[in-house]
Amino acid sequence: MALIVQKFGGASVANPQRIKNVACIVQKTKQNGNDVVVVVSAPGDTTDDLIKLSSGISSSVSDREMDMLLSTGEQVSIALLAMALQEKGEKTISLSGGQAGIITDGIYGKAKIIKIEPRHILSNLRKGKIVIIAGFQGITMDGEITTLGRGGSDTTAVALAAALNADLCEIYTDVKGIYTTDPRVVSKARCLPCISYGEVLEMASLGAKVLHPRAAEIAKNFNIQLRVRSSFDVHNEGTLVQGRGTKMVRRKSQQIEKMAVAGVAADKNQAKVTIVNVPDRPGIVSKIFEPIASENISVDMIIQNVSHRGFADVSFTINRSELQKVLRIVKKVAKEIKSKGVTSAADIAKVSIVGAGMYSYPGVAARMFTALARQRINIEMISTSEIKISCVVKEKQADLAVKALHREFRLDKK
Amino acid sequence: MALIVQKFGGASVANPQRIKNVACIVQKTKQNGNDVVVVVSAPGDTTDDLIKLSSGISSSVSDREMDMLLSTGEQVSIALLAMALQEKGEKTISLSGGQAGIITDGIYGKAKIIKIEPRHILSNLRKGKIVIIAGFQGITMDGEITTLGRGGSDTTAVALAAALNADLCEIYTDVKGIYTTDPRVVSKARCLPCISYGEVLEMASLGAKVLHPRAAEIAKNFNIQLRVRSSFDVHNEGTLVQGRGTKMVRRKSQQIEKMAVAGVAADKNQAKVTIVNVPDRPGIVSKIFEPIASENISVDMIIQNVSHRGFADVSFTINRSELQKVLRIVKKVAKEIKSKGVTSAADIAKVSIVGAGMYSYPGVAARMFTALARQRINIEMISTSEIKISCVVKEKQADLAVKALHREFRLDKK
Repeated sequence: MALIVQKFGGASVANPQRIKNVACIVQKTKQNGNDVVVVVSAPGDTTDDLIKLSSGISSSVSDREMDMLLSTGEQVSIALLAMALQEKGEKTISLSGGQAGIITDGIYGKAKIIKIEPRHILSNLRKGKIVIIAGFQGITMDGEITTLGRGGSDTTAVALAAALNADLCEIYTDVKGIYTTDPRVVSKARCLPCISYGEVLEMASLGAKVLHPRAAEIAKNFNIQLRVRSSFDVHNEGTLVQGRGTKMVRRKSQQIEKMAVAGVAADKNQAKVTIVNVPDRPGIVSKIFEPIASENISVDMIIQNVSHRGFADVSFTINRSELQKVLRIVKKVAKEIKSKGVTSAADIAKVSIVGAGMYSYPGVAARMFTALARQRINIEMISTSEIKISCVVKEKQADLAVKALHREFRLDKK
Repeated sequence: MALIVQKFGGASVANPQRIKNVACIVQKTKQNGNDVVVVVSAPGDTTDDLIKLSSGISSSVSDREMDMLLSTGEQVSIALLAMALQEKGEKTISLSGGQAGIITDGIYGKAKIIKIEPRHILSNLRKGKIVIIAGFQGITMDGEITTLGRGGSDTTAVALAAALNADLCEIYTDVKGIYTTDPRVVSKARCLPCISYGEVLEMASLGAKVLHPRAAEIAKNFNIQLRVRSSFDVHNEGTLVQGRGTKMVRRKSQQIEKMAVAGVAADKNQAKVTIVNVPDRPGIVSKIFEPIASENISVDMIIQNVSHRGFADVSFTINRSELQKVLRIVKKVAKEIKSKGVTSAADIAKVSIVGAGMYSYPGVAARMFTALARQRINIEMISTSEIKISCVVKEKQADLAVKALHREFRLDKK
């Protein structure tokens, strides 16, 4: 008997019919003799609807109250799924994040899981119950409700799989698995049968929407067997994300036989900020990024041009939703450090190619830049790592860039 | 400086505009130098919408999961109201029932408040914050989420007023106050400036929808100053429900000068069950009502006809929503006690007249029966107490009955 954690996203529980479908999948897993812990997101567009509702009330809502508001979404899902399973005769209990013992820090809106106290979950599993847990949310040691940030349900599922020492964590979504790129953009995109943690981590953080990067991170650190698959097409096994050991053997052989590039991703939720003419002296960059970090805002790419007469431009990218907040901070800093001013752009996108073998294949970057140039796509920023190359381009050219790169690296061929 | 508990019903928080209106009322109370604790219900039709959603999934949902589902409604309200007050510059915090320390028993769907641990509320009041609390819900000692049943937000507000030793509890609603009868049925219905606990208790339990009977009960027991008023017409002071001391003096004089009947109420949410030919022997009635009580179902009127050849019919009324549940129980009992069978009717209504002075006015009951007879309204059951007389009639004749009684007792005149 295995312990399986199954996570279902918002689209999978968007209406009663779909919730019943999820109940069928869960019941089958249970009937196959497994212990089952289910993690669900808020139904369909609920989170967006709640955010819209709050924006009709206040333009600058407190993060605490936003978490109080948003955490209701998953609570609706867990109750409805429990009802659907009970209707099918299964012993079931739903638990909010707090009830499940998911303890987080107090950073509302983007809380981090500190620990999981699985006492309540385990006692219910021992009673033979299917345990349904609200994703995306937790509770502080003081009993304050927090949320983990968008996509946090993946994080909940993987963290639970780690805490419960689960045999498998299944991420059910509305696509078949992890693709070489977004199939809505490139019709020839192909579903990968397996992928390494590192690759999926880059794909996720690049906005491929397959798996939350924090979830991929936890899966990697705890060596959790992950499977990304569709809740609408259960016969398709989706994509297996493999443990480090397996990966090393499997990926090495794949590298030799096959491609260096595993996928192409575009993140359109980006904004770019540039501080013009920053005096080039020690400590100046930390003066810029320290106040941003202390507001818990993640900065993605950072680029500093070569100094010119003692001044350099510093550019960086952030999540688009945080642009106004960042501009407020940065404009103040820009004045303090006597830079020439701040410019920003919200109409950008980050297009990336990812592949574990990239490092050993020289010329991949050059091929990428050439493929983009051929489409007259201007590259505004470049950032590279061992297994990815990212370019910032105009948002309206992002799809064109993805198609060009998918074709260039022949990702439609097995 | 006074401590005021203000409760706002679902209609008062049905949309962002109305929530802002509530925020204005609360802010003004705070600015007048008071400490303010606010209790809110779920927005508008949220509770009904959630029930509808669950009925699309299962026909017999568990009470626990229903509470998990329904408790999200108030959580949405408290978060939104907190945002609205923060937008207006007020220091505010929202608390779920559990966070507010509202401890209940474990009877899901109709939990009773055992105690309130106001530590968290008080520490926030001390910090000068307006504390917004989710009505209708609580938490068991085991951390299970419970709801208090329909109209439970009134109960939350009055119980908090008692626990916090508040100076005043204001119940804001969508009508001006407590009327002599339902103004939608009788256009000449009049808003009463004041009323006694006992009267409002009868009016409430008779379905006048002014105040939840449990709330009126707690207000009476703890002698809490209550004001029922409109959130849409703040210049109107509504109806003051007075403490026992005040009442005794005030009501006595009113009895002498004025009417015996204070109001007319109709409860259309009723159903009638009759067990035919019950053997007339000791203990038989408890055999019927004991299993109903153990399912936590409230029985309202109970009537047993005079025995005829050792058999009597036993009739009683219940909340219409519980008819199916009650019939299942009663049919089993009817067989056991060898009665002739069970009949039921869901198309009935209970029409009542209420007044503290009724007892000292002979002939009030006779006038009621005559007024109904004049409209050819058949009376199916009768029940009386010191301050009320109730008649069960056909539901479709209920409005006609209310109009006739309101006229008969001249309730439109001061």
